[in-house]
Amino acid sequence: MKTEVALGIDIGGTNTAFGFIDQEGNYLAEGNIATNNHEDIRDYLKELHMAIENTLDTIRDHAVLVGIGIGAPSANHLQGTIDHAVNLRWEGVIPFCDMMQEYYPGIPVVIDNDANAATIGEMVYGGAKGMKDFIMITLGTGVGSGFVANGQMIYGHDGFAGEFGHIIVSPNGRQCGCGRCGCLETYVSATGVKRSAYKMMAKYNYPSELRNIPFNEMTSKTICDAALKGDLIAINTFKYTAKMLGEALANIVAITSPEAIFLMGGLAKAGDLLFKPTKEHMEMNMLKMFSNKVKLLPSQLTKNVAIYGAAALVWAELKRL
Amino acid sequence: MKTEVALGIDIGGTNTAFGFIDQEGNYLAEGNIATNNHEDIRDYLKELHMAIENTLDTIRDHAVLVGIGIGAPSANHLQGTIDHAVNLRWEGVIPFCDMMQEYYPGIPVVIDNDANAATIGEMVYGGAKGMKDFIMITLGTGVGSGFVANGQMIYGHDGFAGEFGHIIVSPNGRQCGCGRCGCLETYVSATGVKRSAYKMMAKYNYPSELRNIPFNEMTSKTICDAALKGDLIAINTFKYTAKMLGEALANIVAITSPEAIFLMGGLAKAGDLLFKPTKEHMEMNMLKMFSNKVKLLPSQLTKNVAIYGAAALVWAELKRL
Repeated sequence: MKTEVALGIDIGGTNTAFGFIDQEGNYLAEGNIATNNHEDIRDYLKELHMAIENTLDTIRDHAVLVGIGIGAPSANHLQGTIDHAVNLRWEGVIPFCDMMQEYYPGIPVVIDNDANAATIGEMVYGGAKGMKDFIMITLGTGVGSGFVANGQMIYGHDGFAGEFGHIIVSPNGRQCGCGRCGCLETYVSATGVKRSAYKMMAKYNYPSELRNIPFNEMTSKTICDAALKGDLIAINTFKYTAKMLGEALANIVAITSPEAIFLMGGLAKAGDLLFKPTKEHMEMNMLKMFSNKVKLLPSQLTKNVAIYGAAALVWAELKRL
Repeated sequence: MKTEVALGIDIGGTNTAFGFIDQEGNYLAEGNIATNNHEDIRDYLKELHMAIENTLDTIRDHAVLVGIGIGAPSANHLQGTIDHAVNLRWEGVIPFCDMMQEYYPGIPVVIDNDANAATIGEMVYGGAKGMKDFIMITLGTGVGSGFVANGQMIYGHDGFAGEFGHIIVSPNGRQCGCGRCGCLETYVSATGVKRSAYKMMAKYNYPSELRNIPFNEMTSKTICDAALKGDLIAINTFKYTAKMLGEALANIVAITSPEAIFLMGGLAKAGDLLFKPTKEHMEMNMLKMFSNKVKLLPSQLTKNVAIYGAAALVWAELKRL
């Protein structure tokens, strides 16, 4: 009998990567094309279809495709569309699922944004396997999130739920890209951490190697490395980041009472430097009934995360969780 | 054919009231007993069973009982228990559903806390009929809440989700009964409003009839009545309450993206005095993608709310929503 596989497609601004993955997480074959070679989305899909078929040919004797999952920026799962994606060449609202479906009639074609795909990826292939209630938080350039309750993704009425990065944690606080002030994202994203390092340099007199690096050259990794070497500015930066994140986590625990919260993305790589004080602040600010009940864990997905996430959408759609 | 009815039981500290309600919301018969007459829960259940049967006798020729729903303080829906209820005479963890089931084998017996029962009541009988994603907030002595996503109540991992009243909105803010500081409940509950009236009296010099009322005699209704008469202390109290509530609502919209938020309970009776400025602050603080999408509505349940809520649990259990 042939192995059932899902096709996971990760559409990035530059590159579109895809892989065929079975339900156990075995990665059978992969391929990729450039995302922005074609002005017309139909030409892009033609090339993508060809690349997919060529790769599928290499495993067709022992694998059968049961569904296609797509992870894309500005994707609307409920509508099956990509809406006004800033980093892609195609303007307006693209009915991506419908267009893809024409090439693959008879199997499910589903799309979702990166954070939701990562969340479902964690549920199908990662540390949230078997969990019915958990939260995934991606700490990257921005802060994304996915909430799962009763074993189902919370999409909300319009498909846009899970904007944890844009809860306001400090009224009149830091200016956010969304046009408001004080969003969590301005504190606990990679850029937020950088802003906090500057706040600490303004506040304290500690000597620090960070004082030699201009804002535009600093990254969260620079700060992480400095903290690991004992740099007091960097250490205080992580303490502050953990305080802001821990407090916000304590608040959302009161709403959805998850079994676990997973952290993913660049900043999550800081490991204990972030996890330990974040857990402390989370516990410190939590309603007693939730004390020591909620696990704070690193994502278990580490390689080809976006493709795994996209493929996982298929198994979720087929209700095989 | 006989009409299918659910039995809704509302267990209060003093009184246990019940009613038989069909799926359309018709209230067929009712009864009640004292809650705390019996030291032994088994004697209480014996009396309750007798009262239920007597009432059922009056409609038995045209109605058939299909399930029992119970609303009770400190109820755990997932376990079917009442856990350490402060206002009830029975100590410890009471396996209430199991004990009730012995009297009524073969039909579903479900229990939930008051806020969750009110939420499901709104979904089955009230303004949330047909909605898959909404939030119910009860503004009483405390602040309760129920979150519905994908047409299902969010219970969370342990059954304790929906503690919206205990998100911390002001670090190091007002002392809360939960042992922490700055919980939303300390600002937007009936008692919270009273505290805010005192804050306003401390802040402003406006003459106010509220200045003649001692703290222990003041109620949110006193303040509401004063505001309607143009009392500036009372008006500012409601403005402040609406600001705190509106900001918190904007934040949870970003998490679950509901179609509507319902307000219920004593404070919600203030009508436009509360709803109008709350909606303004909610919109003002909301992420743009949610602007003018989320309805803020008064609960449509007005009479026998707790019994309707309890009965609604049955239809939810039978998946007839």
